[in-house]
Amino acid sequence: MHNNSVDYSLYLVTDRDCLGGKELVATVEQALQGGATVVQVREKNLSTLEFFQVTSRIKSITDKYGIPLIVNDRADIALAVDAAGLHIGQEDLPLAVARRLLGPDKIIGVSASTLEEALLAQEQGADYLGVGAVFPTNTKDDADSVSLAALKSIKEQVRIPVVAIGGINRSNVQPVMETGIAGVAVVSAVIAAQDPYEAACDMLQLIRA
Amino acid sequence: MHNNSVDYSLYLVTDRDCLGGKELVATVEQALQGGATVVQVREKNLSTLEFFQVTSRIKSITDKYGIPLIVNDRADIALAVDAAGLHIGQEDLPLAVARRLLGPDKIIGVSASTLEEALLAQEQGADYLGVGAVFPTNTKDDADSVSLAALKSIKEQVRIPVVAIGGINRSNVQPVMETGIAGVAVVSAVIAAQDPYEAACDMLQLIRA
Ligand code: NI
Repeated sequence: MHNNSVDYSLYLVTDRDCLGGKELVATVEQALQGGATVVQVREKNLSTLEFFQVTSRIKSITDKYGIPLIVNDRADIALAVDAAGLHIGQEDLPLAVARRLLGPDKIIGVSASTLEEALLAQEQGADYLGVGAVFPTNTKDDADSVSLAALKSIKEQVRIPVVAIGGINRSNVQPVMETGIAGVAVVSAVIAAQDPYEAACDMLQLIRA
Repeated sequence: MHNNSVDYSLYLVTDRDCLGGKELVATVEQALQGGATVVQVREKNLSTLEFFQVTSRIKSITDKYGIPLIVNDRADIALAVDAAGLHIGQEDLPLAVARRLLGPDKIIGVSASTLEEALLAQEQGADYLGVGAVFPTNTKDDADSVSLAALKSIKEQVRIPVVAIGGINRSNVQPVMETGIAGVAVVSAVIAAQDPYEAACDMLQLIRA
């Protein structure tokens, strides 16, 4: 898996808190069958052992579908499961440190909510940017909100792929994609859906429209 | 720093929650001046960035005193700061995975509260064992308590160094050391002390008596 071959169109981010009783790994598999193009495991409040175990199980599924697996925050887990990459926020390992641990061939994505953060991450070697939150959610991403105009401006001023994140669903994805970004990250729009397969299918259709 | 050259006598474990207003890095330095022989950074509820930053600062101090630094749970932080080793509990990365990430030359310690866990960790390549809790504390270590007789039995049935942990202080360290173990892990007995230098000195004197 090379950095430049990744399709960021429908970037699925896990969140066990919004499964509503469904099983996480099965939900991820349904989303992959529906067309998710990248999976990021982002789980809080798990022990390291649990994080490792759930990520290992998801890795088997992403491998089966030939889809890159990205691990949020934890370089140790990314290395332990031989993930395709790591996603770091502004409260995680510094990018230079993460790169040193993962080596040149792994994907490293960085969360950015300002042009300054975006340009700095690009300069330091990020492979893609997660930019948001573009719409209000109940998660920590709300801390920094990014208008669609700001998203577009960031997209136009960086060379690396931009993935928008934050409250994106079927009803609002169209104007997000019109900014020209590489893809959208979805959490509850797929993970919380009664039918994750159909939710992913529908999202992908709108993204590629 | 080679595994077999470590002096486990006074194994300091950090806990910012019991500093009582003192500064963590300064407290660790005073404990090192007082004779602590190993330092383990064990901090919960920090962001990865904060954990990395505090561990980096402590690494500068342990390097200055030529003392091995062990990182609790987080192999990524251990690698990021080039720590001497990693300490893993039963809810952390499996030992085989941790060894693969850290390589053969780093110290890996494992928490054990039964002979079975101790023997398994030794068989899987642990460099030392943290065995406890030998006395009641307010921390998670209480989940599994280990009598002094059980501690002695474990010590006698393994070949690797055993470090006792859990509520050890000046008043109870003597019978712990009489079991023949390599050293004791101290948290609040030094970290919470008004004078960490003197607390470490006093403990070391009792340990080596
Ligand atoms: Ni050495």
